[in-house]
Amino acid sequence: MSILNPNTAIPFNITRLSHVVLTSKDLDKTRYFYESGLGLEVTSHEDTHLCLRAIEETGHHSLVFEKSDGPGVARQIGYRMFSDDDLKRAYDYFNEQGHAAKFIERPYQGLTLQLDDGVGVPVEFCATMDQTENRMQRFHTHAGGRLAFLDHVQIACHDVAGAYQWYNDLGFRLTEYTAKDGTDEMWGVWLKRKNNTQDVVFGNGPGPRLHHFAFHTPEISSIIHAADVMASLDLAGSMDRAPGRHGIGNAFFIYFRDPDGHRVEIFSSHYNVIDIDHAPKRWELTDTRRSQLWGFPAPRKWFMEASAFEGVAVKDPLVNAPPVTLEDFLANW
Amino acid sequence: MSILNPNTAIPFNITRLSHVVLTSKDLDKTRYFYESGLGLEVTSHEDTHLCLRAIEETGHHSLVFEKSDGPGVARQIGYRMFSDDDLKRAYDYFNEQGHAAKFIERPYQGLTLQLDDGVGVPVEFCATMDQTENRMQRFHTHAGGRLAFLDHVQIACHDVAGAYQWYNDLGFRLTEYTAKDGTDEMWGVWLKRKNNTQDVVFGNGPGPRLHHFAFHTPEISSIIHAADVMASLDLAGSMDRAPGRHGIGNAFFIYFRDPDGHRVEIFSSHYNVIDIDHAPKRWELTDTRRSQLWGFPAPRKWFMEASAFEGVAVKDPLVNAPPVTLEDFLANW
Amino acid sequence: MSILNPNTAIPFNITRLSHVVLTSKDLDKTRYFYESGLGLEVTSHEDTHLCLRAIEETGHHSLVFEKSDGPGVARQIGYRMFSDDDLKRAYDYFNEQGHAAKFIERPYQGLTLQLDDGVGVPVEFCATMDQTENRMQRFHTHAGGRLAFLDHVQIACHDVAGAYQWYNDLGFRLTEYTAKDGTDEMWGVWLKRKNNTQDVVFGNGPGPRLHHFAFHTPEISSIIHAADVMASLDLAGSMDRAPGRHGIGNAFFIYFRDPDGHRVEIFSSHYNVIDIDHAPKRWELTDTRRSQLWGFPAPRKWFMEASAFEGVAVKDPLVNAPPVTLEDFLANW
Amino acid sequence: MSILNPNTAIPFNITRLSHVVLTSKDLDKTRYFYESGLGLEVTSHEDTHLCLRAIEETGHHSLVFEKSDGPGVARQIGYRMFSDDDLKRAYDYFNEQGHAAKFIERPYQGLTLQLDDGVGVPVEFCATMDQTENRMQRFHTHAGGRLAFLDHVQIACHDVAGAYQWYNDLGFRLTEYTAKDGTDEMWGVWLKRKNNTQDVVFGNGPGPRLHHFAFHTPEISSIIHAADVMASLDLAGSMDRAPGRHGIGNAFFIYFRDPDGHRVEIFSSHYNVIDIDHAPKRWELTDTRRSQLWGFPAPRKWFMEASAFEGVAVKDPLVNAPPVTLEDFLANW
Repeated sequence: MSILNPNTAIPFNITRLSHVVLTSKDLDKTRYFYESGLGLEVTSHEDTHLCLRAIEETGHHSLVFEKSDGPGVARQIGYRMFSDDDLKRAYDYFNEQGHAAKFIERPYQGLTLQLDDGVGVPVEFCATMDQTENRMQRFHTHAGGRLAFLDHVQIACHDVAGAYQWYNDLGFRLTEYTAKDGTDEMWGVWLKRKNNTQDVVFGNGPGPRLHHFAFHTPEISSIIHAADVMASLDLAGSMDRAPGRHGIGNAFFIYFRDPDGHRVEIFSSHYNVIDIDHAPKRWELTDTRRSQLWGFPAPRKWFMEASAFEGVAVKDPLVNAPPVTLEDFLANW
Repeated sequence: MSILNPNTAIPFNITRLSHVVLTSKDLDKTRYFYESGLGLEVTSHEDTHLCLRAIEETGHHSLVFEKSDGPGVARQIGYRMFSDDDLKRAYDYFNEQGHAAKFIERPYQGLTLQLDDGVGVPVEFCATMDQTENRMQRFHTHAGGRLAFLDHVQIACHDVAGAYQWYNDLGFRLTEYTAKDGTDEMWGVWLKRKNNTQDVVFGNGPGPRLHHFAFHTPEISSIIHAADVMASLDLAGSMDRAPGRHGIGNAFFIYFRDPDGHRVEIFSSHYNVIDIDHAPKRWELTDTRRSQLWGFPAPRKWFMEASAFEGVAVKDPLVNAPPVTLEDFLANW
Repeated sequence: MSILNPNTAIPFNITRLSHVVLTSKDLDKTRYFYESGLGLEVTSHEDTHLCLRAIEETGHHSLVFEKSDGPGVARQIGYRMFSDDDLKRAYDYFNEQGHAAKFIERPYQGLTLQLDDGVGVPVEFCATMDQTENRMQRFHTHAGGRLAFLDHVQIACHDVAGAYQWYNDLGFRLTEYTAKDGTDEMWGVWLKRKNNTQDVVFGNGPGPRLHHFAFHTPEISSIIHAADVMASLDLAGSMDRAPGRHGIGNAFFIYFRDPDGHRVEIFSSHYNVIDIDHAPKRWELTDTRRSQLWGFPAPRKWFMEASAFEGVAVKDPLVNAPPVTLEDFLANW
Repeated sequence: MSILNPNTAIPFNITRLSHVVLTSKDLDKTRYFYESGLGLEVTSHEDTHLCLRAIEETGHHSLVFEKSDGPGVARQIGYRMFSDDDLKRAYDYFNEQGHAAKFIERPYQGLTLQLDDGVGVPVEFCATMDQTENRMQRFHTHAGGRLAFLDHVQIACHDVAGAYQWYNDLGFRLTEYTAKDGTDEMWGVWLKRKNNTQDVVFGNGPGPRLHHFAFHTPEISSIIHAADVMASLDLAGSMDRAPGRHGIGNAFFIYFRDPDGHRVEIFSSHYNVIDIDHAPKRWELTDTRRSQLWGFPAPRKWFMEASAFEGVAVKDPLVNAPPVTLEDFLANW
């Protein structure tokens, strides 16, 4: 299995992660969390749905919440293709491969193609969205974590190698990965189309489930300010994992859980991977600096909890994940 | 003339700069500038006056604007004494010295003593003010430059040595100063009561006039954000001097002019001067790093323009200031 | 018991926390931790001792490590008085009170007075120290956490009310405190002489033991950079408590343990308390936002471990501290 | 003339700006400026040349200085193509177009193709370079402005429309541009291949000349720190334009001149342009917010001075640039 070169002969161009569609029991509470707390912009709020976007985004939405009385679930991971022609070529390609790809109607989006990916994640692709001026130079409206753009999703997956192969075939490039020490058994893969290190990450675990989605913000102090704002809005209970530095991807991070339990990361410090000779970075599974360069352990719930995809059965991992033991965690207690 | 030890036998304790009283032609425009732009909190807004304060301040106001149809002038520089007993002892002291000190009524302030200082600046002293919880831990309300507290005023003065002597006699300590090369002729004096380098600064020039008042904010990025916010609120025209680093006092600064022409500095990077053996720092008059460690020249208006004190005649300097020549400025053009 | 007014009739002026004297088994390792890691300046390194200071400090040292083969212990907490005259008046005062105050020799310090405080902590006072130019405007030498100055110590103490009374009698002012809900039983007191909220903190627990000493740095990103630097120097194991926001004092913090186990805090976001009408802030003992505004729990060792004072017996608290239970901690696991 | 869609049928893939080759009279002085001052990493320093790169770069160099006794000139603007196959297809393509493209030897680079672009700029393309681990997670080595990567060059050009057409034909996309008010006459074009707004910028003026090259750094405070470091290394004279915010591209910037007069920008706050429906942003020529959102004018030398390309004649602009008048500049004096 090559870990270097993505398929460059694929007849369509996926350009980036575009948006995430989730459910919410209470759109007002969700809005308070993301707008008043994290500082996202509401572009549409109706009885049935809530759309939000970040400071530099000119498209209509990067987050969509659909009203639902059930528990919070994920409905779609949205990607961009470059043009509608790409979407049409992709329609043929996916259906030839036996994926039941279909064009669907999506408010505020142009032509949209929907299918399930190779590990069962519902994904949709579009090339265009309603465009309006962003808030980049309306600095007086920047608030919360000053989130700049939706960067990536991380998906807990029962078959990381299978996910890697499927996305690599679509031209996604591997930038960093975790493998079982001394083997090629992949446990975590950072895959990307745009210039930085990830549009989608797959990590070993019962899945598919949406572990988190992540917004980028350039300044470290904005991440800390987001935590302070959450505390002063009485949303301290939403904090999920304390600020730290991921070894993988070099992200300075913080994690929150929204009112429906969806996990959102805010991070800074991404970097570019563009050149063909920039090799993927390997991390051994037993190297704890992967998850935290500083050594502070993540809470167990960070490893164990995630948002199900609606109607998609969760499968046990093909290779067994080591248990997150209380002993490990209490070493620092 | 000693430049080290302030008078410690003075029978009252001035603790810090407290507030500034200015006039404004249009309180709504003034409010927009300071509240929407710089992020100060409005604590009182009536037809006749507007009071504002910064994030960590618990007293009622650090800035007071009084409605006036005339040109913008300064009315009072307010200082704090520790207690009302200090104010009473100061009343006796000043009147014995021939200053016409008197107790006056000031809204929101406790006992307040008013007089003119040794170089003609109207000053007032109080020990108490109405107290309310500040916004320090209401992080979601922090905006603009996240101004933390009013730190100092700078006054253009015809007799810097005289001003120094008067304030030194009141226990103000000299922390940094500019002197004509090779002499003891003082051209700028940084004087303080609280722990950092200045509560009041006197610089040589036609005066007394209020050159600026300054708020501290701890993070450099907040100063840049203030400039961005001003630009996005169509207040770019208020910018007076580009961001830079003062050699004296080590302040990273930016300067604005408010709608009535009053100059306000936002700065970070103050430092403590507490110990008796921490000597005042001397800067030669010809060392341009005094004003800008980086070498970018200040605009002429920064040197020349200032707010008059209402009803106070402006005197020519006892020692002549070198002209700010076009040639100097154009060296970098 | 008054919680507002410190004794202002005391015949000497303590101005601030000055320095801390600790032991180290290996001065080279200690130097690597503080100089290469945190970015402090070494001002003296001999076989017997190591002295360090922070960026804006002009005195010789704020940290002294003395070589010792035993376990790491604290030897002295050093404070400044304003002048040698203050020290002489203090000598009389303390000896009249029955404290065995004595003048001692201390390298690099002027006249130095030593005694044990009211709860058994060895303390020393001086007014002067060897002075040299600091690194404030030698920006190219700033590294690690860009530590600005030593700010405070926190001491675990069996008798917080007694410690409060003793320091209040010396003119220390209470700025924030924790009390058992609905009572005046003090569990934590923030006491200060300089302008911000603390020079010394006492918290309920077996003591006296030095819980930590703390350096201030103005920018949040410098605190995060310190953690990154520690990780890249293979000192990640020194991290003790993840970055967070104390409710009390509003400090944005991180904690490390040095090679001898001494705990050091780096924090930003201090604030001024100067005015007589600025009331101390009370926190209820059961309000967990005291220790962490964001809700992330501290590890048990943060509560339990501290540096003994050499030769000083540790006493059990007069009032029982609630146990730090595994259940509390695991609520977030 | 379409301003939206780059040519996507071009038979090779240029991925990004790669490096800049310049001359230096004194490589030691150049090294001091870029390594000690700005914080770049030296990857090669011989009698004949000096190579440097930024923190996240894994390739051998992004800046090359070649020793020369003449005045400082620019020699090559280097771009990356995706693979050597792209370079070979480009060789055929350019020679068919009548450009004298040739493969050349370049130390530390793989296959390298050289030619002159449509407006006379010498450019070279490679796909690979010697790779070594970067300093991204060696945080203790980060210094100066913590420069992350070489982002773009700006070229003064006598024929902006011609340059635009040539690069658009190679698949460069226009993201922002300046046009003479009410016309399509282009005066400045921001062109890019990678995800953000520019790899190369052309501005109207006598040319071709290299106006500047620019490194990105994510945090605003790092830009200010770079200026402070320059001042404390006695390189304050290298400062060329005070920190400010470009309207175009949203860059928070500072500009320096190196010892040979080459201009280098450090900036933060870039943003992504990826989607086909993200329209180029137009700025009117008379809108001064283009160059400075805050209103502070640039010095005349910033507009007038630039590095010649060795052996390339400078042509007068096809359309006349408005003179930068003293009156404009002095409006803020």
